[in-house]
Amino acid sequence: MANRPVITISRQYGSGGRLIGQKLAQALDIPFYDKELITLAAKKSGYDEEIFKSVDEQASNSLLYTLAMDGNVTSGFTNLPLNDQLFMIQSGIIRDLAKQGPCVIVGRCADYVLSEEPDVVNVFIYADLKARMERAVSQYGLPQGKAEVTLVKTDKRRATYYNYYSGKKWGRAENYHLCLDSGRIGLDASVDVIRTYLCAAETK
Amino acid sequence: MANRPVITISRQYGSGGRLIGQKLAQALDIPFYDKELITLAAKKSGYDEEIFKSVDEQASNSLLYTLAMDGNVTSGFTNLPLNDQLFMIQSGIIRDLAKQGPCVIVGRCADYVLSEEPDVVNVFIYADLKARMERAVSQYGLPQGKAEVTLVKTDKRRATYYNYYSGKKWGRAENYHLCLDSGRIGLDASVDVIRTYLCAAETK
Repeated sequence: MANRPVITISRQYGSGGRLIGQKLAQALDIPFYDKELITLAAKKSGYDEEIFKSVDEQASNSLLYTLAMDGNVTSGFTNLPLNDQLFMIQSGIIRDLAKQGPCVIVGRCADYVLSEEPDVVNVFIYADLKARMERAVSQYGLPQGKAEVTLVKTDKRRATYYNYYSGKKWGRAENYHLCLDSGRIGLDASVDVIRTYLCAAETK
Repeated sequence: MANRPVITISRQYGSGGRLIGQKLAQALDIPFYDKELITLAAKKSGYDEEIFKSVDEQASNSLLYTLAMDGNVTSGFTNLPLNDQLFMIQSGIIRDLAKQGPCVIVGRCADYVLSEEPDVVNVFIYADLKARMERAVSQYGLPQGKAEVTLVKTDKRRATYYNYYSGKKWGRAENYHLCLDSGRIGLDASVDVIRTYLCAAETK
């Protein structure tokens, strides 16, 4: 029997992927990491958390070269653009967390970062445009008129980030073990489907 | 509650997608269509079945313009290349079958053909290269040295066929409701995961 796996979740904006990850972590009683990774990266590096938040999940951009440096910075990558530093530091943190035991990690190319680890299940969550727009308006409070633009821009940024660092194509099924349309079945049922897959992956 | 859906299955060569579809159809006690669609298309059109087999799941090629015509041909598309005729006839058959009730349909862009139907669940089955090669050798009897070439060629042909007729990208997660790596969990567990998804789709 395999060990209980680390679960990575990639998600389209508005698909509820983050919440599915939270519910899954709760159901399995394991830690959940999303924005928490930025806090950990800031602590580890000595950078201000707000600076890292501004470049989170964005591909490298030469304009963002080490905007803020102070005596406490200990990342070891200080000659790199901030985005690349954040990616490097987060990757190290993700590898450390994965060694500590099963957990759920959202975004940050975690599937790619952990690609050499055997006990990882990579999940991609998406939904059709209508379902994601409804969610963006009702749950994230976006104005109706801005929902589609925000959604398309955010996903474009996520895709660029993923493709840049992983060299693979965001949203191609074969990058993940399981991909599911959460709009068709809802968030709780999505958790059930992931658990069915996990259960089989653990016992094989 | 939604109606029991038609399930379409797209699959990488060697992923066991066809067998997963068969097992699923058996478990749900509904009809299964794969190569059977060629027989039905031949019967409907008056073409010889062997001729259609030679162009099955291949994108159009001008060299294959109506190679065989006889007095019984009734496809109504006889000025089109054979591949296109087969696609048109099979699409009509797929739509007719979907109207008759739930069933499992493998390949032939069935997800695209039925994209206007609400009660359809589209599944994509894949696995890593190692798992597919092992399967191609042990189950399909391919010589070890030829497995990888056959696998890559077959998937390239399927992708070209899908992209040509649907205008979408084969293997992109968002074309399907559920995509799963069968190599990681095995065929029976893959059926379980699909059934968990179906169950949620039916009751939503």
